[in-house]
Amino acid sequence: MESTPRPWLEIEQLIELGDARALEGYLEQLSAGDTARAFANLDADAQHQVLLLLGPGDAAAALEELPGPQAAGMIEELETPQAAAILGELASDERADLLGELSDESAGAILDQMPPEQASAALELARYPRDCAGGLMVTECLSYPQDVTCRDVLADLQARGEDLAGYEVQYIYVTDRNGALLGVLPLRSLVLASPDRRVTALLIRDLSSVRPESDLDELREFFDAHPFYGAPVVDADGSLKGVVRRSDTQRALEERAGRDHLKFQGIVGGEELRTMGVGRRASRRLSWLSINIVLNLIAASVIAAYQDTLSAVIALAVFLPIISDMSGCSGNQAVAVSLRELTAGLVQPVDALRVWLKEISVGLINGAVLGSLVAAAAWLWKGSPWLGAVVGGALALNTLVAVSIGGVIPLALKRLEVDPALASGPILTTVTDMCGFFFLLGMATLALPRLVGI
Amino acid sequence: MESTPRPWLEIEQLIELGDARALEGYLEQLSAGDTARAFANLDADAQHQVLLLLGPGDAAAALEELPGPQAAGMIEELETPQAAAILGELASDERADLLGELSDESAGAILDQMPPEQASAALELARYPRDCAGGLMVTECLSYPQDVTCRDVLADLQARGEDLAGYEVQYIYVTDRNGALLGVLPLRSLVLASPDRRVTALLIRDLSSVRPESDLDELREFFDAHPFYGAPVVDADGSLKGVVRRSDTQRALEERAGRDHLKFQGIVGGEELRTMGVGRRASRRLSWLSINIVLNLIAASVIAAYQDTLSAVIALAVFLPIISDMSGCSGNQAVAVSLRELTAGLVQPVDALRVWLKEISVGLINGAVLGSLVAAAAWLWKGSPWLGAVVGGALALNTLVAVSIGGVIPLALKRLEVDPALASGPILTTVTDMCGFFFLLGMATLALPRLVGI
Repeated sequence: MESTPRPWLEIEQLIELGDARALEGYLEQLSAGDTARAFANLDADAQHQVLLLLGPGDAAAALEELPGPQAAGMIEELETPQAAAILGELASDERADLLGELSDESAGAILDQMPPEQASAALELARYPRDCAGGLMVTECLSYPQDVTCRDVLADLQARGEDLAGYEVQYIYVTDRNGALLGVLPLRSLVLASPDRRVTALLIRDLSSVRPESDLDELREFFDAHPFYGAPVVDADGSLKGVVRRSDTQRALEERAGRDHLKFQGIVGGEELRTMGVGRRASRRLSWLSINIVLNLIAASVIAAYQDTLSAVIALAVFLPIISDMSGCSGNQAVAVSLRELTAGLVQPVDALRVWLKEISVGLINGAVLGSLVAAAAWLWKGSPWLGAVVGGALALNTLVAVSIGGVIPLALKRLEVDPALASGPILTTVTDMCGFFFLLGMATLALPRLVGI
Repeated sequence: MESTPRPWLEIEQLIELGDARALEGYLEQLSAGDTARAFANLDADAQHQVLLLLGPGDAAAALEELPGPQAAGMIEELETPQAAAILGELASDERADLLGELSDESAGAILDQMPPEQASAALELARYPRDCAGGLMVTECLSYPQDVTCRDVLADLQARGEDLAGYEVQYIYVTDRNGALLGVLPLRSLVLASPDRRVTALLIRDLSSVRPESDLDELREFFDAHPFYGAPVVDADGSLKGVVRRSDTQRALEERAGRDHLKFQGIVGGEELRTMGVGRRASRRLSWLSINIVLNLIAASVIAAYQDTLSAVIALAVFLPIISDMSGCSGNQAVAVSLRELTAGLVQPVDALRVWLKEISVGLINGAVLGSLVAAAAWLWKGSPWLGAVVGGALALNTLVAVSIGGVIPLALKRLEVDPALASGPILTTVTDMCGFFFLLGMATLALPRLVGI
């Protein structure tokens, strides 16, 4: 599937022709990514026209392809009744997600225009955070009361064949008179049984389930442990609220991995898309940068304390950014491995000592190699083995500090229930900068008589 | 599901008791993460004993829970016949993945001990890279020749009920006399049809499929476009090779996102786990660090060129690491957003101009804010508005450079078919360091008469 270079040009032409059928056909064959790129390149007016031309059903299908914030931006540009009509065509989980992306004001206005039943179901789903079972589940699952026979269920399925066409039926859920989940019936058991049997006789009853508040890691455990395609979501009373699909869980895990990466690089508060407004993008990035600049000023104050040494041996200034950057790199490698092992559940805060010992052994080797390299460079440049020893020694020592902090700090933050992906980077660079500047300038001060005049 | 603090202690006790049943029961209720942690904390001898005590079937179940490199490390410690027996119990895709993690020597020895049919199937799968359809597919799919009836298929399914118990049957694939895929039959069509009908009459024939060499992005597109749980994999002759499950595709995408994050932080060549040997871990990290230190020395040579300015105004040395670090942060934010948009298919190299304009607008705002902050700090510290202007101006200007490069370089690398996750970071920091040092020291040289003596 080749990516289309400029799909928006084609769309602009189709808008001009006003050909809804051709537009729908064109959008349908675009990949999800190209659909998003096409809308990102259309101006607000053209985006508006596309949605109107498509009508609610096809507009909903197009919006499903887009990342949440981008779809929400387009919905907010519409008149409320049109927005409500499009949202009415979405699946329950996508509808709740999209409402969650809208401003409270827009969401409220749209909910007012929806059929009351749909609106209250959407509000119910929106109560749950996005990345838990309640937020990921679909409420469209097939559940039947306990007293039906296999024949009844099959007849109902056949009658609803049309509605279920796009929906992969795997399991039938059976509930008691109070709506509490009794068990599950795989479709294959249903069809292989004699039609007169009651479904209760065929039920898998010792069924694991998840709670609406179960988080992504619990869902991952569920699907690791069970070969099912869906996890029934059951509340404290035992009643069935919906089903989380395996594929939706995996997709949410993938999105979380991507968001963690963004967060680690200082994009806070969720996804940033370039289709968002510049004010929102700048202020999100600044919230993190402005903390970082304060930390940087604190770290640099170590340099200010050694001004006399620096002015005596100005060559040291060349190595300050190198020590800072290389230690940051070594530390970030250790942070990245720890974050990955934490996410995969391979380490826990209790394993900090093992992690530290593993990092120390790598740090000794890498510190020796990197220290020697930079020592050789310094010696060659100024012809002073003493300068080489000071610079190389400082980097070697600080590499040890960096990998130790980098390996352990994510575990410590996890223990303190601070998000490790967010806070590890700034803490690491501040501490390694301070230590690095202190090692370099402190050792240089001690060796000053040997360094002056190089 | 609470994590168990020290599962390895329990396991050590069970080994001592030699109680295989209890050990198997204990491992089964551990989460995948805790299983991995437990093995990571056992010494090589104890790991060995656990696998022997469990027997091939249960040992295979335990290894399935572990990350590939960790499982491979344990397999390599075993005698070849034991290793072959355990591998024989794995599903075809997991077996091929694990063989791919082993050294060629171990893999060859183990293949020699396997039943020839199993060995040749494993070799066939191992031909494909891990992250393409051929590498992800399972060969255990239900395919039937075209001349059977629904009754035949149902009878066969019932007869094989035991074998298929752990396997979620969704589709029946129907092939012609040459093994070419004719179409697919959802289980529900099969069971709702009259038993005497031929399966060919019920077939969905205009079936999309993927090729063994289709990559993860193509698989994602397939599953975005189709509601199926599995994608049939068909080679150039049209013959069915296996099925890729939706959930396996999502899992591979999640793993790729994690690996990209590691790569961006300088962990090259795949996953690093702390259960790997120290030599391998150190040399992988060094391969990236040693390139970085050379780039750092090149960037620092800009500072060396301005030694006279620096020795005249030693306060500038304090701001060198701040300019370097803050520009790196701003640029990395832009890189992270571009990488994310690239992975999701939301931007293409052709969109570079749009991305650059979007970054410039953020860069103007953030550069002004950060520049003012650092200017105020410099002014307050030394009481010189000129120092503030030079430092703040350099940071503001370099923030613009950093976000421009950070936003665009991943697209350019993608165009050049260089891995953007790997190369963006080093290129970004080298260029922004050089520009930043040049702006700061160049402007200071111009304003030197106003700065001397502060």
